[in-house]
Amino acid sequence: MRYIVGIDVGGTNVVVGTVAQDGSEILGVLSESTNAEQGPDAVVERIVTLARASMAHAAGKEIAGVGIGSPGPLNTKTGIVILTPNLGWVNMPLRDRVSAGLGLPATLDNDANCAVLGEWWRGAARGVPHVVGLTIGTGIGGGIVLDGEIYHGASDIAGEIGHMTIDSTGRRCKCGNYGCLEAYASGPAIAARAVEGLQSGADSALPDRVSGDLAKITAQVVYDAAHDGDAYALEVVYETARLLGAGVASIINIFNPNVVVICGGVTRAGDTLFLPLRNEVKRRAFKPAVDVCRILPGELPGTAGVWGAAAVFIKRTWGRV
Amino acid sequence: MRYIVGIDVGGTNVVVGTVAQDGSEILGVLSESTNAEQGPDAVVERIVTLARASMAHAAGKEIAGVGIGSPGPLNTKTGIVILTPNLGWVNMPLRDRVSAGLGLPATLDNDANCAVLGEWWRGAARGVPHVVGLTIGTGIGGGIVLDGEIYHGASDIAGEIGHMTIDSTGRRCKCGNYGCLEAYASGPAIAARAVEGLQSGADSALPDRVSGDLAKITAQVVYDAAHDGDAYALEVVYETARLLGAGVASIINIFNPNVVVICGGVTRAGDTLFLPLRNEVKRRAFKPAVDVCRILPGELPGTAGVWGAAAVFIKRTWGRV
Repeated sequence: MRYIVGIDVGGTNVVVGTVAQDGSEILGVLSESTNAEQGPDAVVERIVTLARASMAHAAGKEIAGVGIGSPGPLNTKTGIVILTPNLGWVNMPLRDRVSAGLGLPATLDNDANCAVLGEWWRGAARGVPHVVGLTIGTGIGGGIVLDGEIYHGASDIAGEIGHMTIDSTGRRCKCGNYGCLEAYASGPAIAARAVEGLQSGADSALPDRVSGDLAKITAQVVYDAAHDGDAYALEVVYETARLLGAGVASIINIFNPNVVVICGGVTRAGDTLFLPLRNEVKRRAFKPAVDVCRILPGELPGTAGVWGAAAVFIKRTWGRV
Repeated sequence: MRYIVGIDVGGTNVVVGTVAQDGSEILGVLSESTNAEQGPDAVVERIVTLARASMAHAAGKEIAGVGIGSPGPLNTKTGIVILTPNLGWVNMPLRDRVSAGLGLPATLDNDANCAVLGEWWRGAARGVPHVVGLTIGTGIGGGIVLDGEIYHGASDIAGEIGHMTIDSTGRRCKCGNYGCLEAYASGPAIAARAVEGLQSGADSALPDRVSGDLAKITAQVVYDAAHDGDAYALEVVYETARLLGAGVASIINIFNPNVVVICGGVTRAGDTLFLPLRNEVKRRAFKPAVDVCRILPGELPGTAGVWGAAAVFIKRTWGRV
């Protein structure tokens, strides 16, 4: 049995783990702050050190290579990260630098693609052909797995489902477009919508949870208040379910997938979000497509991207997982 | 050289043609009213007669089989049309009935899938791997061709791009959802938006073109008036470009295709629509995805579905076109 180091490079944290080729186990899951502001050299060094520490948990195992997931856009063939505003990288040869640092062959793919492939391989979407996934956090990433393979498109950009327009004259998105799903249903967008309502006079216990400092309201604070029965927080969650439901319904009408998997912090909202979300989708999408599709929270919080990055290496090296 | 009969069954017309296996020619392109109200037996008989008439134009050629495109939902494996409101069919074994009537093997696929595959094989999207297409007419159909293969999804429903939400609280769509692209940019929706503006007092020569009977305004009437410089008609076309642009931008962010092909009557609007459409998409979608994607009108008006239906037969029978 060979092992593969999976590396998930995020704007906030780097997560690594050493994954058995047959997917039976993950060893040495470790995480550290990315500290991208220290520059690419420091980040690469941190990644290499963290990967070595993970491999130490797999002492005696044969390590075949490294799979890396990174924010993009990036080029999966050359292994170069073209641009990541969050990390401040431009044309950064991440794959080859990590490969050289560890003395192991490496692959590079988009972080959201890796997370969705991870959920397909070992998580909520195990065993089905077609999965479309959203990773909801600071932004909304997306990944498309068709017949068990990541779909990359013409230039490795495919899967930007968070930048699907759900309101053509709606909220400005960071990407420059208007009314993107991300502009409504990312973590910060959920918090911003909640704050806007409070500033307009909504009655809620939300301000008490942040000692009156509305800037401290996060999506998690909203979920917690909703869970405790705060009527206004529930309203924000239902509105999130409606907006996310419009997006997921479009995904189902377009892809007719077996599973839509939703990963990231938003899954902590649990049934408070997922029950109205499924109802909204049922009202909006084509019945024969809804009937065959399960809408599931990710089952690998924190490690989906690591599993998936390793799976990318395995697939490219040996053809299949 | 073998030949294949392609049959495009529409709500209004049936179109047939006899296509060379290598795509070099199409013979005996014939069309007749579907007259679905006469019931499925009469329609099947009409299809068989029309196919025989087309084959007569290919006298002496070996006819290998029949490819059929039909509105859906349908099952490509069993060859059964599950439901088509426009044709009034429920669980109609269209493939086997046409096959029996002609004494030839047959395949069945969705009409919009066929049109997009036709444009990929012999039309505007020749030679590229990834094409997403819209067929804009009474409704908006869609087809997805990835790596040169129609993507069908989990239950042959994939590609309903006309039922992507572009305004989550927007116009009611016939499908029951709100704010679908089809509810804004199908032929009747374009006409309806034009009429609404006129009824609200817009100044335009449009009513003169239909002798004051606003019910006679069609999308084509709007394009003609726009082409002749009617300011209000131009406004309606620009608004159509904006709405369609929001949808096409989402397609580009999601699929990162090489070509988005737009088929159907809407292509007759020409540059009046396509220039502002491309500008809108450029403003909305991710630059690295826009840069590699051409947005093109279909090049096979009237026969894309016939070419594509034949291509489906060829691919399923011999693996590739």
